[in-house]
Amino acid sequence: MDTQLNDPFSSGRPNLFPNRDIAPRLFAALHAMSFDGIGITRAAYGPKESEAHALVRAEAERLGLAVETDHAGNLSMTLKGADPELPRLMLGSHLDSVRSGGNYDGAAGVLAGLSVVAGLVQAGFRPARDITVIAVRAEETGSWFPVSYAGSRAALGRLPPEALDVPRMDDGRTLAEHMREEGFDPDAVRAGRAGIDPATVAAFVELHIEQGPVLDEQAVPLGIVTGIPGSRRYRAARVFGEYNHSGATPRRLRRDAGLAAAELAYRLDAEWARLEAEGHTLVCTFCVLATAPEAGFTMIPGEARFELDMRSENRASVDLLHEALMRLVAEIEASRGVRFDLGAESGSLSSRMDERLQAEMATAAEAAGVPHLAMLSGGGHDAAAFAQAGIPASLLFVRNQFGSHNPREAMRMEDFDAACAVISRWVVARAGNDGA
Amino acid sequence: MDTQLNDPFSSGRPNLFPNRDIAPRLFAALHAMSFDGIGITRAAYGPKESEAHALVRAEAERLGLAVETDHAGNLSMTLKGADPELPRLMLGSHLDSVRSGGNYDGAAGVLAGLSVVAGLVQAGFRPARDITVIAVRAEETGSWFPVSYAGSRAALGRLPPEALDVPRMDDGRTLAEHMREEGFDPDAVRAGRAGIDPATVAAFVELHIEQGPVLDEQAVPLGIVTGIPGSRRYRAARVFGEYNHSGATPRRLRRDAGLAAAELAYRLDAEWARLEAEGHTLVCTFCVLATAPEAGFTMIPGEARFELDMRSENRASVDLLHEALMRLVAEIEASRGVRFDLGAESGSLSSRMDERLQAEMATAAEAAGVPHLAMLSGGGHDAAAFAQAGIPASLLFVRNQFGSHNPREAMRMEDFDAACAVISRWVVARAGNDGA
Repeated sequence: MDTQLNDPFSSGRPNLFPNRDIAPRLFAALHAMSFDGIGITRAAYGPKESEAHALVRAEAERLGLAVETDHAGNLSMTLKGADPELPRLMLGSHLDSVRSGGNYDGAAGVLAGLSVVAGLVQAGFRPARDITVIAVRAEETGSWFPVSYAGSRAALGRLPPEALDVPRMDDGRTLAEHMREEGFDPDAVRAGRAGIDPATVAAFVELHIEQGPVLDEQAVPLGIVTGIPGSRRYRAARVFGEYNHSGATPRRLRRDAGLAAAELAYRLDAEWARLEAEGHTLVCTFCVLATAPEAGFTMIPGEARFELDMRSENRASVDLLHEALMRLVAEIEASRGVRFDLGAESGSLSSRMDERLQAEMATAAEAAGVPHLAMLSGGGHDAAAFAQAGIPASLLFVRNQFGSHNPREAMRMEDFDAACAVISRWVVARAGNDGA
Repeated sequence: MDTQLNDPFSSGRPNLFPNRDIAPRLFAALHAMSFDGIGITRAAYGPKESEAHALVRAEAERLGLAVETDHAGNLSMTLKGADPELPRLMLGSHLDSVRSGGNYDGAAGVLAGLSVVAGLVQAGFRPARDITVIAVRAEETGSWFPVSYAGSRAALGRLPPEALDVPRMDDGRTLAEHMREEGFDPDAVRAGRAGIDPATVAAFVELHIEQGPVLDEQAVPLGIVTGIPGSRRYRAARVFGEYNHSGATPRRLRRDAGLAAAELAYRLDAEWARLEAEGHTLVCTFCVLATAPEAGFTMIPGEARFELDMRSENRASVDLLHEALMRLVAEIEASRGVRFDLGAESGSLSSRMDERLQAEMATAAEAAGVPHLAMLSGGGHDAAAFAQAGIPASLLFVRNQFGSHNPREAMRMEDFDAACAVISRWVVARAGNDGA
């Protein structure tokens, strides 16, 4: 049985505001322990991620929360409710980072959860149901393992076994090896053990910095996300042509791999523009495009490589773009005498955020006087893994001034506090008060 | 006064065939001293180039040639003629190589000269005029100094002083520093001292491997070059956009530097095709095209770089392509919100090969029974520097099976011998015999 949403916004209890001391202190501590000279680096299933977990765990223990780490290293910090039979609320995000990223990506969601729960603890609020703050492992696929939502899917018993054998991009050692090295149990992950039973979770709420510029451009601090895109990706594509002298090789005898890659990028971008003009919502990015190995000046490039990221809320849209990709590859192979090797395809499913939760968050934001915007997510987030497991999920964005996955990533603390206030109001409403 | 071309081809003196022992032996010795594990590396004004000069010099001394090294390190090896007042004939090429290049590029021209002169010496032929084999310094611009024909222009007193201050691409130290380190006199080069007075040279003949596939495709061993292209080059161009998250940044907010570079490459290539269809002869190559520095997967590239090489026999053709480049850069800057920085332009003038020499070489080839083809050169060669100094110059290509500036570069010795036989016939005709 679910507790009904009463009128929490009229309670007016000032002592239910989120704690505003923990987050600045932990952001500073996280920065100090993981600044690499350029930005923040905490590898997925690496020692720095574990150190961040320990830091957060210590704070939770000081707050008197019930702390538990699952077989895959995900950390749950629970304020116990009066009725252990009621489905719990979960708040959280991840603590790993890309290489030389910013200090807020992921961590903000964990510290938001702690700040909200600390506010409840300090106000003496005793919820009817459990409220769990979760610090998830290994969300970042950009620098480490090309596996989406490894930590949260492992927590939910939904990580495909073959993902454990994927090598980390920079050191070649597998996800299983790194997981074991940090003290966890890849065999249990491989067997599909679930630390979280979806039936026992009423909602998962993730706060995250926005990874794009939309909120900042619109001058709105809070985004309430409607959906998280799925993707089709080629992360290690190559083009093979022939190295030849740039002066001495006539046009008709050239097999220029660099130009073939450039043509593909330019024409696929035009296909994206065409699909967008037809009303599709999608993005298409050649994250890397390079002649390589380079033979130097006076040489026609004989080889090139690229990394292609195509995303949409709608599988059908990304599939149309993928069809165009296949058509262009065949055309360019024929016209330029090159051969494409797209390599393995990877990607993730798209996920809708829960509509009731979206409405509740909007109501809480109105009550808290926080301007907000309904928006799509561009990036993938742990909330997608929870949604795919059947758990009602909500994703809130805080505006960010300098983009994501880079050291200049920025978030104003007043925006973070406003978002925490919204979550706090929602938690009080949904967690129920046992009246104690 | 120039000696008239008699009928050398009917002399039938078998002892005027080129020496066939020196070239295989010296090719093997050059390979042994400069194989780097992948290919041949002899840096311009580096110790290995000097070592190659010493090897060739020792051979010339064994042959009794008069040996001299000029202020810029160019090595002249002369079979003295009876009349020192007659303008001399020069045969030669360079001994430096690109990084990990082939064993024939440059060296073949020097060894051809030595083989021809050795044949004369061994036959007891005493020419009326001096015949000089020249080993030129620093022809390769691809890996070392981005300066065309540094050695031959220094020999001719025509190297612009500022070229001495250009840094070597891999170590940052200037041409003057490297020149001095190998024991030569950059101050004299800067002052324009000429080791060769053009008025004293009747002809410069350079044998070189073809750097493209044309002769091999046509199954012809020998090319008689009509002209050497000039170039307009941007060797360090960059594009600046903005790094952003590949999922979270909508199309209208993107400033994708990689895509801007790709669009430029694709559309300039189309301009080249259009000019070629209109009858222009030119080539256009993006030798390098790369998103860099790479921010990794899930990032829109905020920066890219490229190296562009445009060449033609006709300055007007390359100028038309250059106009298209400027127009496209402006268009793409406006449409994609990026900024191009093309960096410094470099290049060289185009040069016609001497028509009388072309005709004489064709006659000699006919007499020797060597199939030949009139053709344009794609690459630049020392013969261009001699032609620009007003010396009648000729460039002969030997077919090459696997392209140039790479370790697989290949040349059949029978093709080399055939080309030497052609040069030998021409030398005997033009050098005159003092009858001794």
